[in-house]
Amino acid sequence: MQAIKPIIWDGEILQLLDQRMLPEEEIYIQCRSVSDVVGSIKDMVVRGAPAIGVAAAFAMVLAARQITCADAGEEAAPVSSDGLLEHLEEAAAYLKESRPTAVNLSWGVDRMLGLTRRLRDASPDKILKEMNIEAENIFREDIDCNKKIGDWGAQLIRNGSTVLTHCNAGALATAGYGTALGVVRSAFFGGKKIAVFANETRPFLQGARLTAWELQKEGIPVTLIVDGAAGYFISSGAVDCIVVGADRIAENGDTANKIGTYMLAVLARENSIPFYVAAPSSTIDISVSSGEDIVVEERSADEVTAVRGTSLAPAGIEVKNPSFDITPSRLITALITEHGITFFPTREKIRQLVREMKGPKDILPK
Amino acid sequence: MQAIKPIIWDGEILQLLDQRMLPEEEIYIQCRSVSDVVGSIKDMVVRGAPAIGVAAAFAMVLAARQITCADAGEEAAPVSSDGLLEHLEEAAAYLKESRPTAVNLSWGVDRMLGLTRRLRDASPDKILKEMNIEAENIFREDIDCNKKIGDWGAQLIRNGSTVLTHCNAGALATAGYGTALGVVRSAFFGGKKIAVFANETRPFLQGARLTAWELQKEGIPVTLIVDGAAGYFISSGAVDCIVVGADRIAENGDTANKIGTYMLAVLARENSIPFYVAAPSSTIDISVSSGEDIVVEERSADEVTAVRGTSLAPAGIEVKNPSFDITPSRLITALITEHGITFFPTREKIRQLVREMKGPKDILPK
Repeated sequence: MQAIKPIIWDGEILQLLDQRMLPEEEIYIQCRSVSDVVGSIKDMVVRGAPAIGVAAAFAMVLAARQITCADAGEEAAPVSSDGLLEHLEEAAAYLKESRPTAVNLSWGVDRMLGLTRRLRDASPDKILKEMNIEAENIFREDIDCNKKIGDWGAQLIRNGSTVLTHCNAGALATAGYGTALGVVRSAFFGGKKIAVFANETRPFLQGARLTAWELQKEGIPVTLIVDGAAGYFISSGAVDCIVVGADRIAENGDTANKIGTYMLAVLARENSIPFYVAAPSSTIDISVSSGEDIVVEERSADEVTAVRGTSLAPAGIEVKNPSFDITPSRLITALITEHGITFFPTREKIRQLVREMKGPKDILPK
Repeated sequence: MQAIKPIIWDGEILQLLDQRMLPEEEIYIQCRSVSDVVGSIKDMVVRGAPAIGVAAAFAMVLAARQITCADAGEEAAPVSSDGLLEHLEEAAAYLKESRPTAVNLSWGVDRMLGLTRRLRDASPDKILKEMNIEAENIFREDIDCNKKIGDWGAQLIRNGSTVLTHCNAGALATAGYGTALGVVRSAFFGGKKIAVFANETRPFLQGARLTAWELQKEGIPVTLIVDGAAGYFISSGAVDCIVVGADRIAENGDTANKIGTYMLAVLARENSIPFYVAAPSSTIDISVSSGEDIVVEERSADEVTAVRGTSLAPAGIEVKNPSFDITPSRLITALITEHGITFFPTREKIRQLVREMKGPKDILPK
């Protein structure tokens, strides 16, 4: 069951579903080089922390192909393993710069680099072959991981619930299936009656264009609202819980996610409904102590002042366009990873989660 | 100093600045009849509670002209005063239906009706003449009232402050000057260093198109952000206070205002900054006990799924588009009217405000 395929890999070309064109058109961008992938990440052809991580892993294979394979579009001179590794280190640095907040990008690149360093003594052909296997593993593991997140999270969703979500933490944000929407999928296809409110998620409208499209496509009831209307529906009792994804989770549980997430967490607390973060454990970055240390990407003013070429604001207006905000862990009811459910995440619980990678010892609600 | 003129009246034709076309084009719609004005209110050519109230008052004059003046575009048969009054009662009912939430609309219409009822024994010509004077008074009083609101409110704005506002409670939302932006104007032109964050205010983008334009035009520093980014800037300490307008204030102080206002009040409380509502006392509706009794207008899905003809969402998607939300009075730091500042509004304080119409006895902060 993978109706929606944001990332297709055939061993030579990485095809990325152009998410800027959805829902009107389903077009794939063909990436043959690292710079093709970097461009696609920067321009949000591919977006969503896990999907960026997977795309970056394949980009590392493309980087290797570029200097080892004559068919890769460049004149490939015979290269040594050392030369290949040097080239890959450069490609890794280039990839990591493409978007600063989502940690899965670094995670995917570093996992590929780690493999190549271990294979330093192997032939370039062997390294390339193993890289291809590793990237495909990362792809498959992401889907498996999402399904586990979905199945854990579904236990938190009561039959008859209305779930509010923000941005797109769906199949389109991952290799497939989704994190926050994975929870929705598992609950829905597990037989529960579920409805979703999707925040449109300005400025890039991932909710309107992607989440609405994805859920509509699979027959999951979805209602689109503007971001400012979330409070209206939450306070009127129409929302039972909020589930969002994450771009980076600090060691203390503070979570960076799409701009607008923090206000939902505050509204959830004010109105006594649970606020859940669903994300693979690769989103946890224990090198970051708290949310204050997370770099928040600022994107172009154009995203705010125009939509698809249609101007929305006076010329020359000053704009601030932070792409993410930080939700403090004290506002998070539970963190849902592939390892289980961590209620009221704290530094200690997240350290344990990362250390054991077996899941927290919290008891699930009956 | 009335650089921005949303409403122009020459005694025969009501010209409304078409706010759907701003900021690109400054075009006036010529209204010669009640139905012209009703159409303009419904389609948001004119919007903002006070501006709608003023436009509706002039619409009543147009209604009278339609059956008393041969030059008003209809074949005006001689009409009796009773016939005129009957016609005006019908026009009033028609006008009041055009938008349900803003109370100023009913207020403006009822004030005109009250005048005509008192003049029942006068000639149709006399009634028309007095109606014209009354509507012009309503127009002038609105601007005077806004300036008083501005001057009271400015006392709450410290030098060097950054004020966040939502929607457009500016000159464009009133006869001129504005309520929330009246406070900003009074503070700014009173010599204080002020900067404004303007929420773009989806779906109709009054912040991006109107507030940004209005402030830019007068040289008041303004930064445009998406609605979901308000929490980011509030929690990071970049916002000193929030000032918004109101469409209807219940007797207990609960306030209906543009969708997205409630979340700002919750964010203000969470982050310990003041949340101010600036509105003329005509916005208070003591016939409504609390926010629960305020009718919230639902507008068309098209406002959410498309911007100026550009589609933003998949075809056939379910949409909810409430135009307002209710901020409970417990989240309101102060209500600023032309009569003064009512800190922590309660039913008792609002009853007193309405009864005395002299302003509450609260002491201003030093």
